[in-house]
Amino acid sequence: VSLALERGWLHRGSTVLAEGVAEADMVVLATPVRTIIGMLPQVGDLVKPSCVVMDLGSTKSAVVQAMANLPDHVQPVGGHPMCGKETSGLETAEPDLYEGRVFVLTPLDRTAQAAQDLAGELVEAIGGRPMLLGAERHDQLVAAVSHLPYLLACALVGAAEELGQADDLAWQLTASGFRDTSRLAASEVSMMLDILLTNRAAVLETLGTAEAQLGHLARLVREGDVDRLRSALDAIQSRRRALFS
Amino acid sequence: VSLALERGWLHRGSTVLAEGVAEADMVVLATPVRTIIGMLPQVGDLVKPSCVVMDLGSTKSAVVQAMANLPDHVQPVGGHPMCGKETSGLETAEPDLYEGRVFVLTPLDRTAQAAQDLAGELVEAIGGRPMLLGAERHDQLVAAVSHLPYLLACALVGAAEELGQADDLAWQLTASGFRDTSRLAASEVSMMLDILLTNRAAVLETLGTAEAQLGHLARLVREGDVDRLRSALDAIQSRRRALFS
Repeated sequence: VSLALERGWLHRGSTVLAEGVAEADMVVLATPVRTIIGMLPQVGDLVKPSCVVMDLGSTKSAVVQAMANLPDHVQPVGGHPMCGKETSGLETAEPDLYEGRVFVLTPLDRTAQAAQDLAGELVEAIGGRPMLLGAERHDQLVAAVSHLPYLLACALVGAAEELGQADDLAWQLTASGFRDTSRLAASEVSMMLDILLTNRAAVLETLGTAEAQLGHLARLVREGDVDRLRSALDAIQSRRRALFS
Repeated sequence: VSLALERGWLHRGSTVLAEGVAEADMVVLATPVRTIIGMLPQVGDLVKPSCVVMDLGSTKSAVVQAMANLPDHVQPVGGHPMCGKETSGLETAEPDLYEGRVFVLTPLDRTAQAAQDLAGELVEAIGGRPMLLGAERHDQLVAAVSHLPYLLACALVGAAEELGQADDLAWQLTASGFRDTSRLAASEVSMMLDILLTNRAAVLETLGTAEAQLGHLARLVREGDVDRLRSALDAIQSRRRALFS
């Protein structure tokens, strides 16, 4: 807080929850998911009526369930910006992190339109693109496009570590492919742990799909089935190139 | 060839193999691995005595085996620069692609010291760091640090594609994590196909290790074993951060 005040990034700041939220029209909780869920009851007791309580948690079903227990006079909106990085802290903050990014908003049935609008304005003010989405659908989608990449990156580092212990030359042969594919394995563990634990069913389902994909590719390699291997890899390449071109 | 001549990147060029290699002191084959293996007998018949025949193929055991059948007057050296990209062609060429990169050289027992030296000088001339390595050891190492990342990236795109067919919003939620983890899935299929098919045993072994890693993480998530999941993810994070800091 002192650094942010010093640099003029904050006008007022406090690390005491009650002080921080007492007069707020809007409170944005930006911590790992299980911390958000743990803080919500306390925040609900501390904020003034009609305060919009939003979060930036990476899974939404568990957060929205916890938000449903907030006092009736609080206006809850779940939020999840589709951007991130494997570092945290003010020193590596980027002013344009949200620019052009989809920012999912998951209002509850009880959330007033004015509160949804305010959340949308906040998102647009930082350059994000608000997208209304149900919490469960959000969690299923991010399991595949965000939590699965993390686990695959972890499996890659874990497998390379097993080899690296037998032959430490392994680390000298890593190139940009290994670097990029493993990048997410450097993510904050507290954040990822909460994500995995609050999205278990969807994570396990998408992991199963990925394991089946890997098993299929392994079988084609083992059998030396050139034609089917080529057509599987071609389809995957086309999809990837169409996504980011 | 005409584009490269036009831009002054080549002094002389030919797409006819016999013309291209006839007077060469050194021939560098830079095609997918199975094409290299197919070309070697012909190249051996066309080059002048003492010509150094090198390659840039991504797997080395199969290439070195094929090089062993070259005529006695030819000097074979396997090569593999530890850098690459998912695009190919002159238009996306980078002059500093090899700068500071490890460049593996796998000479044969029969290769003269002078030929090894020439290969090393070529590597250093383009900024690479030559590393002498046995072909089999090379292939085991790159299976884990290069071919495995490719297959994991493919499994990720394949799994996301399955979800994307059910809910096309999936593609709108992809962020930098998905982009980086999936980047290798856009690699040239012909090149990757040859790599997988000429390094099957090592690829399947490292795939098995990665599948075991994934299965272990899945089990910890399923059981909600917070402490063991945290310590597994912590160890992986530390390793990744130590590698690229």
